[in-house]
Amino acid sequence: MSHDATPAVPDTAHGIASAVRAGRLKATAVVGAAISEISLRDRAYNSVTRILGPRAIGLAEQVDRKVAAGEDPGPLAGVPFGIKDLFDCEGETTTAGSTVLRESAPAPRDAAIVERLRLAGAIPLATTNMDEFAYGFATDNAHYGITRNPHDTTRLAGGSSGGSAAAVAAGLLPLSLGTDTNGSIRVPASLCGLWAIRPTQGRLPKAGTYPFAASFDTVGPFTRDLADLKVAFDALDMHGNREPAPPELRVARLGGWFAENVSDKLESAIGDVMAAFGSNEIVELPEVARARAAAFLITAAEGGALHLPRLRAHASAYDPATRDRLLAGALLPARTVYQAQRLRRWFREQAYVAFARADVLVAPAVVGEAPRIDQPLIEIDGQMVSARANLGLYTQPLTLTGFPIMSVPLKTPGLPVGLQLMALPGKEEALFAAAEVLAKAGLAVAASVPG
Amino acid sequence: MSHDATPAVPDTAHGIASAVRAGRLKATAVVGAAISEISLRDRAYNSVTRILGPRAIGLAEQVDRKVAAGEDPGPLAGVPFGIKDLFDCEGETTTAGSTVLRESAPAPRDAAIVERLRLAGAIPLATTNMDEFAYGFATDNAHYGITRNPHDTTRLAGGSSGGSAAAVAAGLLPLSLGTDTNGSIRVPASLCGLWAIRPTQGRLPKAGTYPFAASFDTVGPFTRDLADLKVAFDALDMHGNREPAPPELRVARLGGWFAENVSDKLESAIGDVMAAFGSNEIVELPEVARARAAAFLITAAEGGALHLPRLRAHASAYDPATRDRLLAGALLPARTVYQAQRLRRWFREQAYVAFARADVLVAPAVVGEAPRIDQPLIEIDGQMVSARANLGLYTQPLTLTGFPIMSVPLKTPGLPVGLQLMALPGKEEALFAAAEVLAKAGLAVAASVPG
Repeated sequence: MSHDATPAVPDTAHGIASAVRAGRLKATAVVGAAISEISLRDRAYNSVTRILGPRAIGLAEQVDRKVAAGEDPGPLAGVPFGIKDLFDCEGETTTAGSTVLRESAPAPRDAAIVERLRLAGAIPLATTNMDEFAYGFATDNAHYGITRNPHDTTRLAGGSSGGSAAAVAAGLLPLSLGTDTNGSIRVPASLCGLWAIRPTQGRLPKAGTYPFAASFDTVGPFTRDLADLKVAFDALDMHGNREPAPPELRVARLGGWFAENVSDKLESAIGDVMAAFGSNEIVELPEVARARAAAFLITAAEGGALHLPRLRAHASAYDPATRDRLLAGALLPARTVYQAQRLRRWFREQAYVAFARADVLVAPAVVGEAPRIDQPLIEIDGQMVSARANLGLYTQPLTLTGFPIMSVPLKTPGLPVGLQLMALPGKEEALFAAAEVLAKAGLAVAASVPG
Repeated sequence: MSHDATPAVPDTAHGIASAVRAGRLKATAVVGAAISEISLRDRAYNSVTRILGPRAIGLAEQVDRKVAAGEDPGPLAGVPFGIKDLFDCEGETTTAGSTVLRESAPAPRDAAIVERLRLAGAIPLATTNMDEFAYGFATDNAHYGITRNPHDTTRLAGGSSGGSAAAVAAGLLPLSLGTDTNGSIRVPASLCGLWAIRPTQGRLPKAGTYPFAASFDTVGPFTRDLADLKVAFDALDMHGNREPAPPELRVARLGGWFAENVSDKLESAIGDVMAAFGSNEIVELPEVARARAAAFLITAAEGGALHLPRLRAHASAYDPATRDRLLAGALLPARTVYQAQRLRRWFREQAYVAFARADVLVAPAVVGEAPRIDQPLIEIDGQMVSARANLGLYTQPLTLTGFPIMSVPLKTPGLPVGLQLMALPGKEEALFAAAEVLAKAGLAVAASVPG
């Protein structure tokens, strides 16, 4: 994000904030540089759908005035961030990646988590691309185009928060916001080589967030830097008194389902990770295939129930890739959903049991590298299947628990792949402690963009 | 419940407990008298399905031993009670009014609320008849027969907890337990002229209770005496520190839906009730018809989801009156249930608003007297409709709120009719205070059995 006309803009959010707070760098300069970079370079990625220019500049001026007046501009002072286009931004229409919402009234105020970042001094700069209504793992949007992976633009960025991931991976923004229903933060973070977190379900407020499957939807940030993820999560969480990580982390790997279909490269990286933790402990969750099926069913039913009235009136305005899945979801019998909810409660209990001898569980986030755009398939159990529907193979079953999960960018040759670290509800600090171990061991680092 | 061979057994639960605690009356004598009365008189009512003879006698002996040893036998010492046959009783098979459960293993322990009464010294004496799986307002059971109203045996006792209500109304037992999903306590209490309470949803434990529509199911007691209802509720609640009733009760009547279709007799009684409270305040709940529809839908869907696996294998073993409703419920689309749940949340908010200027709301519990068994119909909006499905006209919409509701026996000429008193969640004391006003004014009293 360097720019000729201004002092060099640091790569990290905490670096930017530090320079802005010290008066070494103007927030307006940071915003100007980011706008310029996006306009120059995002043609290749299509990660951004709108630049919120006037407002961003106005907010940057406010930050600069605070700094000049000796006031505290906040821990994220001057940090521009991207916003998946299902979070309300004051004065903007929230499209949720659709055209059917394009005529809706502009949002009267920011979504709660946009507001929290703003209160910390960060600056909402751009809305980002997504699968329509967040229903997909591809960020291939019939209305707003496909978002390309910055590490190889012939490949998918993953989804549904793919625009937010790609913008950060490309270095256009140091921070962005996404939502994770079945893996919509973890999949693109992994394929784009980023740090990200799906916090404990219910921990961060969803006010002003367009829902998808309300009982799963969870909001969270993407960054290229682990320290940035911590600062962003602190700002979003707004609580100082989190439970500290245990002094000796007990780490185990999830076996069974989560050890099958793993690409050689990822398998080797996970071996190094477990060695760094000094653990060869393996635990298994039961009935993972059923857990994934339950997540599919509940998602489809909740999404279908939400959209049916609008589908009845405007079916043809929906992205074909989304329309059929929502309609199918609206036809699901209630008994099937009740059965899935029963499994969900049971699976959640089993997940508690899995933590009996571990503070953090390790699992792959994806089977391998980002799939090609012209051949959007991945191999599962020897079959080539749709990437859009199946990239959540490892993320979707864990969704059922509601437990916090961090997405960790593994340092591997070739294209990025990612890891999931899961902890018990409310214990995000254990995830940050485990991430620190991996970062210090040189095993986890955000992938740098080529060229 | 008098019996020649023993000292006279008091009519009330607190009277029995007082005599047993003072050593004036043996608990074994109480149990013996109750068993004898049931065997002699229940042929006319068919309220009891099983007498738990050996266990009741053993427990009575324990109570008598405690009294003799100077130990505290509990506030309900020696009080025999009836148990709707969907509560587990140690050593007995819980049938839930069905034959398909008849081969199930005996329950290893008592349901939580049976145990709580037992801990207070009361004695589980009999299981009682019900609509199969609690799905009905009639207690007309294809396997165990119809329960007849003790006040007129050509009429329905109401349901689904009709056996528990009829046994108490007939004076066979001073206390019994039922469940209320859409009105299954309030309807039979009203038609049998009893005091009863559906406490705040979630307040009393449901462990060991066979479910029907789990998100509505609520457990509670029936008595002929208001003081008995208080003692029983205290024993079931196991908390001393309930919120006291406000010193000046503000009472309002529910208008609109709850003032239509009311029989002349009931309308006149409600007029007297409001005069006793010195109030002519009327409040309305919005969209009551939709609220009732939502309760119907959620009930059918939850019941259908619960029973579908067993219906697939044993449909012909179900009561025809229940089978079709459960199958229809199992076919409901999830979107319909989600919509009903949205209405439920909204309606509950509106119910809070209705309490803005009132502590207690008054509504009829039924449209009029018990329907005839040979013509099980009631008149609603000028149409004669099925009593089994429609007796919950006034109880079912209020089910959506989860608020506590007391069923009050009105002193009227002819057959019994009842009133609902509703308060905010957790405020059962306000209901008892309001009930006391009506009892003192001579407007509310359990109906006495003729002959």
